[in-house]
Amino acid sequence: MNPDKCSPDTAEDMEPAESFIQQAMEIIIQEAVKKGTNVKEKVCEWRPPEQLKELLDLELKDTGEPESKILQRCRDAIRYSVKTSHPRFFNQLFAGMEPHSMVASFITEAIKTSLYTYEVAPVFTLMEDAVLKTMMELIGWKDGGDGLFNPGGSMSNMYAVNLARYYYCPDFKETGIYGSPRLVMLTSQELFKKIVDLIGNYFYFTSIRGFPTCITEPSPNNYNFLLHNHDMNFKLVVAINVLTVSLLYLIRANSVAWNLHKMLMATLQCSAFLVRDKSCLLQRCHCAGASYLFQQDKFYDVSYDTGDKSVQCSRKPDAFKFWLMWKAVGTRELENRVDRRLVWDDLCLFSCFKYSLFLNVLLQPEFANVCFWYIPPSLRNLPDGPELRKKLHAVAPVVKERMMKSGTMMIGYQKHGDKPNFFRMVVISPQVKRQDLDFVLEEIHRLGKDL
Amino acid sequence: MNPDKCSPDTAEDMEPAESFIQQAMEIIIQEAVKKGTNVKEKVCEWRPPEQLKELLDLELKDTGEPESKILQRCRDAIRYSVKTSHPRFFNQLFAGMEPHSMVASFITEAIKTSLYTYEVAPVFTLMEDAVLKTMMELIGWKDGGDGLFNPGGSMSNMYAVNLARYYYCPDFKETGIYGSPRLVMLTSQELFKKIVDLIGNYFYFTSIRGFPTCITEPSPNNYNFLLHNHDMNFKLVVAINVLTVSLLYLIRANSVAWNLHKMLMATLQCSAFLVRDKSCLLQRCHCAGASYLFQQDKFYDVSYDTGDKSVQCSRKPDAFKFWLMWKAVGTRELENRVDRRLVWDDLCLFSCFKYSLFLNVLLQPEFANVCFWYIPPSLRNLPDGPELRKKLHAVAPVVKERMMKSGTMMIGYQKHGDKPNFFRMVVISPQVKRQDLDFVLEEIHRLGKDL
Repeated sequence: MNPDKCSPDTAEDMEPAESFIQQAMEIIIQEAVKKGTNVKEKVCEWRPPEQLKELLDLELKDTGEPESKILQRCRDAIRYSVKTSHPRFFNQLFAGMEPHSMVASFITEAIKTSLYTYEVAPVFTLMEDAVLKTMMELIGWKDGGDGLFNPGGSMSNMYAVNLARYYYCPDFKETGIYGSPRLVMLTSQELFKKIVDLIGNYFYFTSIRGFPTCITEPSPNNYNFLLHNHDMNFKLVVAINVLTVSLLYLIRANSVAWNLHKMLMATLQCSAFLVRDKSCLLQRCHCAGASYLFQQDKFYDVSYDTGDKSVQCSRKPDAFKFWLMWKAVGTRELENRVDRRLVWDDLCLFSCFKYSLFLNVLLQPEFANVCFWYIPPSLRNLPDGPELRKKLHAVAPVVKERMMKSGTMMIGYQKHGDKPNFFRMVVISPQVKRQDLDFVLEEIHRLGKDL
Repeated sequence: MNPDKCSPDTAEDMEPAESFIQQAMEIIIQEAVKKGTNVKEKVCEWRPPEQLKELLDLELKDTGEPESKILQRCRDAIRYSVKTSHPRFFNQLFAGMEPHSMVASFITEAIKTSLYTYEVAPVFTLMEDAVLKTMMELIGWKDGGDGLFNPGGSMSNMYAVNLARYYYCPDFKETGIYGSPRLVMLTSQELFKKIVDLIGNYFYFTSIRGFPTCITEPSPNNYNFLLHNHDMNFKLVVAINVLTVSLLYLIRANSVAWNLHKMLMATLQCSAFLVRDKSCLLQRCHCAGASYLFQQDKFYDVSYDTGDKSVQCSRKPDAFKFWLMWKAVGTRELENRVDRRLVWDDLCLFSCFKYSLFLNVLLQPEFANVCFWYIPPSLRNLPDGPELRKKLHAVAPVVKERMMKSGTMMIGYQKHGDKPNFFRMVVISPQVKRQDLDFVLEEIHRLGKDL
């Protein structure tokens, strides 16, 4: 085969690609952005798996398909996907539409680079550094620290636990686990189970409700306590507003996981892991010194090469999403958005009282979570006891099924301990309106009143 | 604060967002897609860190900036980023421009969802399943298996090692490391160091050049051997073409990491991890059963909920990138692309011979890698020995510096063991032309002949 014949001429060959991308973008803007956020459209177009498989025609074949067909496939992919930016999506810890982070993520996809060296990602390396530094200032680490963006909150937790182990056992990489002191982690088992199982599961759990205070000193009996990181999720965002009041416990934490794709609505994923340490702990803990990436005789300051700080080799430039959003709206508007969101906690409670005839609030709304039972008329006069609880337990799954099939909204349900299934409504987007909230409660009643 | 006043009316408020996204897309197509792939444009617009910081005006402020300014920031971010899709980018294991995966990644960013449940990601859940199944057929696993897409090849390796440990110690999550048999991993230390350090570093390494065959049987002396996964990277893609000839060693592997963002040019990241096991090993190894996501009393078949197979909670729908690309071009064209790419191995060698006066080929080109020394005229008559090696070692960094500053191309260099710095040219994109290859070699000579 003659490579000159079969290799495309790049300049000419890009024209169809450009035209395809242009047409696809029209579809994305129309279907995902415009319709996907319009309250009059459905949140989801539910199809059961077997039927959706047919509709999507998933089979991969020997020959390709024409452009028009592929564009139709893009339309279909959007059509049958859940519209998580819809104002009536309360199902998860992400919601809402943030155009700046969306554009930034389009750019990072088009630029197609990885954050390991300054050489291949100069712009995003500097932006990540700038964003991390400003975030650390916000949480009160006046002396700075270190950090990186990574593929989600669980990965941040993984980094936190691994760093803590390395901090207490700096010889760990040489001696291995059998040559190191035994360690104990004081944490909530639910939060860290996956990570602890992964990194060795040699800890003793102490299951604690909520977020325990960190115990930093080695105990006298030859066991050390590992710091666990505060998975602040959206809580930290709140912290922006209460910085001068009580951020005290944050200042005491040695690391923080901050997910900007939660209350600040950045496109998925946008997760920062911040470490208070300033002695290159991240680098020392994870470095392997791959000679094809981290040459020490480069002509620029190689401290800008961040790739050896991370476990993974490739790392997406997610920081750019937050940087562009921040530049576009400014710190004060970020704060306003959180303020606006926080008002919903009271409002949710207010609405729940308004509908208290058939709602039973499980807990005071805690940040973005409102947990409640819907009590259908048939159960209203039953006394509390096993019979009521059993019947109540069956209510939420049926309402959820009807909700998905009608496509008007999405909120989650779950059980917890011995508590029967309850609705867990996550109100995370400042784009939500009061009528959306009322709609949810009335709609649950409409869907479940016959149960 | 009255939430009705401060909460935006969604339908109206999306108009500026749509207009912003539209304008940004024009910039992305013009600057990243069109210019970024044009051989007449620069590969990079090098600026040293301090200067680039000034140019980018990184500081995050209290107040936001107008749209026109933000659009200019988008332009600047693209301008000063490396154009990894440029035909003269040979610096990394990713290159080239693939419009279908790019559009698919725009869609996943706009849809903003995570793969944990069918409920929130019905389309992408089914697509991932379809893609993984077809990939397993291609590598000859006629009976199927299991798998997931994850944030990169290193994460695939992490899954492989963790699964292998769980396979040999199924009680591991209960007994912990001190209650489990000691294990040995037979692998290349360079490939797996970071991962092994993370998951406990209680292995004994056997450093082996290249890819060792897996040893699957427990040894008699109470040590088990862990399977290591074959990080096939681009090699597996080659395997598509030689499926009927020798794919034998792949069929014997118990897991495979397949990075579609390498030779198949999908946008970053697009990494599949395939496991031959059909006994839900992935699920059993990683499950934590979070009750707010994986309710067992849902109204649909919950085996479609894949989120408890993974360590991380959020998982991006990267499979869609490969699915759309595959649909658009078909299996045969994917094979053709690899064929076209493979021709370059011979051509690289041919070119190196053509320029053999000043090039010294270090190794036969191995798949996408061409490693060679550039020997400036002043060194050509020096006999092999410490003096030549020392001088040769200093050549590549200087040529690289001049290359970056001229911006005409990008290729990497490295040392290896006692071998002085050599160029490592990664020819991974089928969009490369023969003249690009000649250009690289002539350009190195132009940049380094005075050394």
